[in-house]
Amino acid sequence: MNAEIVAIGTELLLGFVVNSDTPFLGRVLAGVGIGCYTQVTVGDNPERLAEAIRTALNRADLVITCGGLGPTVDDITLETISAVTGRRLTLNRAILKKIRGRFAHLKIRMPNTNVRQAMIPEGAVVFPNEVGTAPGFLLTLSSSRKRGSRRIPAFAGMTHKRPKLLVALPGPPYELMPMVEKHLIPRLRRAVGKTVIASRTLKTTGLTESEVDAKVIDLLSLKGATTVGIYAHPSQVDLRITVKAPNASAAERQILRVESKIRRRLGNLIFGADEETLEAAVGEGLKKKRLTLGVAESCTGGLVQHRITEVPGASDYFLGGLVTYANALKKSALGVPTALLQKYGAVSPQVARAMAVGVRQMTGSKLGLAVTGIAGPTGGSKKKPVGLVYIALSHPAGAKVLRCQFSGDRSIVKFKASQTALDLIRRAVI
Amino acid sequence: MNAEIVAIGTELLLGFVVNSDTPFLGRVLAGVGIGCYTQVTVGDNPERLAEAIRTALNRADLVITCGGLGPTVDDITLETISAVTGRRLTLNRAILKKIRGRFAHLKIRMPNTNVRQAMIPEGAVVFPNEVGTAPGFLLTLSSSRKRGSRRIPAFAGMTHKRPKLLVALPGPPYELMPMVEKHLIPRLRRAVGKTVIASRTLKTTGLTESEVDAKVIDLLSLKGATTVGIYAHPSQVDLRITVKAPNASAAERQILRVESKIRRRLGNLIFGADEETLEAAVGEGLKKKRLTLGVAESCTGGLVQHRITEVPGASDYFLGGLVTYANALKKSALGVPTALLQKYGAVSPQVARAMAVGVRQMTGSKLGLAVTGIAGPTGGSKKKPVGLVYIALSHPAGAKVLRCQFSGDRSIVKFKASQTALDLIRRAVI
Repeated sequence: MNAEIVAIGTELLLGFVVNSDTPFLGRVLAGVGIGCYTQVTVGDNPERLAEAIRTALNRADLVITCGGLGPTVDDITLETISAVTGRRLTLNRAILKKIRGRFAHLKIRMPNTNVRQAMIPEGAVVFPNEVGTAPGFLLTLSSSRKRGSRRIPAFAGMTHKRPKLLVALPGPPYELMPMVEKHLIPRLRRAVGKTVIASRTLKTTGLTESEVDAKVIDLLSLKGATTVGIYAHPSQVDLRITVKAPNASAAERQILRVESKIRRRLGNLIFGADEETLEAAVGEGLKKKRLTLGVAESCTGGLVQHRITEVPGASDYFLGGLVTYANALKKSALGVPTALLQKYGAVSPQVARAMAVGVRQMTGSKLGLAVTGIAGPTGGSKKKPVGLVYIALSHPAGAKVLRCQFSGDRSIVKFKASQTALDLIRRAVI
Repeated sequence: MNAEIVAIGTELLLGFVVNSDTPFLGRVLAGVGIGCYTQVTVGDNPERLAEAIRTALNRADLVITCGGLGPTVDDITLETISAVTGRRLTLNRAILKKIRGRFAHLKIRMPNTNVRQAMIPEGAVVFPNEVGTAPGFLLTLSSSRKRGSRRIPAFAGMTHKRPKLLVALPGPPYELMPMVEKHLIPRLRRAVGKTVIASRTLKTTGLTESEVDAKVIDLLSLKGATTVGIYAHPSQVDLRITVKAPNASAAERQILRVESKIRRRLGNLIFGADEETLEAAVGEGLKKKRLTLGVAESCTGGLVQHRITEVPGASDYFLGGLVTYANALKKSALGVPTALLQKYGAVSPQVARAMAVGVRQMTGSKLGLAVTGIAGPTGGSKKKPVGLVYIALSHPAGAKVLRCQFSGDRSIVKFKASQTALDLIRRAVI
């Protein structure tokens, strides 16, 4: 089975919006063992979209379109798919009811244009949209017309005997991704049968790409059914194991073989696998050790707490904290002594430690984390340059303070500091 | 003149590497006034690449390939272009010397495989690579064979009379981008003449896509030299004006004409244009009115303060704030009365208001913002479902409290709440 992806949107052609749907779908297809040989992007133009879908249906068994299912006039995917496949658009009352329900829930009157989103090609299997209004759907196209029992027309453009699958998905990634996970992947797995491509990503923080590379260089040159790739992000290096195997359990065994080799070499530098996040690992550790956390942030401005609270159930261990941008707040809310601020300055190991102690007292938590530094672009000096950050973790038995020098713009410095701060907590609770 | 882009690389199809060349080239083409109607990605496979180049040459005047010019066996672009166009590959001694020079400079012996990168289709104009080894090139393909003076064969696949341009560029963005700026753009400008495509994005928040659509529906169906597109994001709807004009000042005038129409209809629902962010608009307003801000967050968990502190210079107006996940903190740090929490619950307009008042007192700020709600996935009830959020803004003359019901997962609810909270501040300070 092979697939082709057709992304739809003039904004993609113009390069104003980066297409993240297509790479996501590429990874999904690889994950279920379906080859994808061509990916196409066309604008909101019915003729060119029709041509792209026709061409794709001729050379691939599975065609996935993304985008153009919205309620506005430049959303042309429904009509175009209907024209190419000969399947009439019919009103799906269940979807209309769901769309109406969404608007009622939001206490907004549904505009008439949204009715269009409930018009679905006949014979389609509907993929409900849990996040937005536009549903997705799957059409099975066959060149042989079944007479009598079903009145769905044959697909005239088909040159092959085997039925083809046409899937239409909404463009916004936050709508497309959950729909793919919940509705498309299970169907693809069933359609593909037994050859499996599986992969696992091991995520590390604390080493540079070259340092990780040096530890696993022999594995990075593996060829054939098992490969390992290395991918660098800010303050994070991922290793991805990919295996091809006759079935899922053989794939899992082979992944585990390579994974355990990597884990022996990298140990607890690995904070998680696949979708596991650093903030979730922190949460796991805190829950397991029945510890609570309070956080005081200066230069990260709330990012550490934002990340901690991205984890469902964070309220079990995270009590709260402060963003102390003004020095006055460091004194009044955290009890950092004025003398300390005057002698060492706000960006110093002494103040970081005092903030961490102070936030424990203020929130009543067992652990107190504090971050103070210079995110830039201004505020740096020769002695304390932009990117200098102190991170302190206070606990009943004492405190640990890290001195870090990060590179990058304001956003990157904030992110790297949050990554290092979270990892400091993680290592304390594993 | 219209163009088609062919990106080459199996790693792009697999979604492990995000294709940034194609959106970059999309913006470049739009900037010089060349329409781009189709973009294709194929893997490192000679047959499929040949088919993609042939198809592109048939429907576009300009075809740009990116990738596959490296020294390894899976780099197949040179051979494929030679096969499709009938132009023989010939050794370009000037390029070979340059490649040798690069290796000598790095004190590395040049591998024999790199000689391949100096083999260029006959008749090509070479684009030197200042960063890496692989040069790019431009071929002018004509269907009429000039006999005698030049021995370049005609391009058999051509169905049009006009000569076509085929440009091959290296894949790594840091090699491609400077080559495009220095060598491709000037040539394209000369080929196109003076036409300019310019665009502006107006960003709104506070209305749904359908509501914005209804206000500008006549503009969305504009065709020809001026178009308006609509793009929905979580709690944000963008309108992009794109114009084609004979020169930059005519383009700017036409953009302003459409922009002022849109602004008359949407007024201060528009918070910014192009790269301007909502958090920057908040900062501008606070600075202009010389106001300071303190923030108390519950369900957004630090995200509002993180976004505010993404803006350089935020310390001029943002004093700091709290993340009060635990109710005890709402009482001890913000002075929210126990009676209020017991009577109305933490997620209530009364507590939101008390938090906003409390954070003003605690930070000494003029304005106090508070967010309290249920981000999910648990913690909801029939009376207070997941996604229910109260947002309060307290100022010396009183307070405003919003009740919001957001849909989506935990992350989306947090983001939408932060967006609405920032917009509440923005509207108070414009």
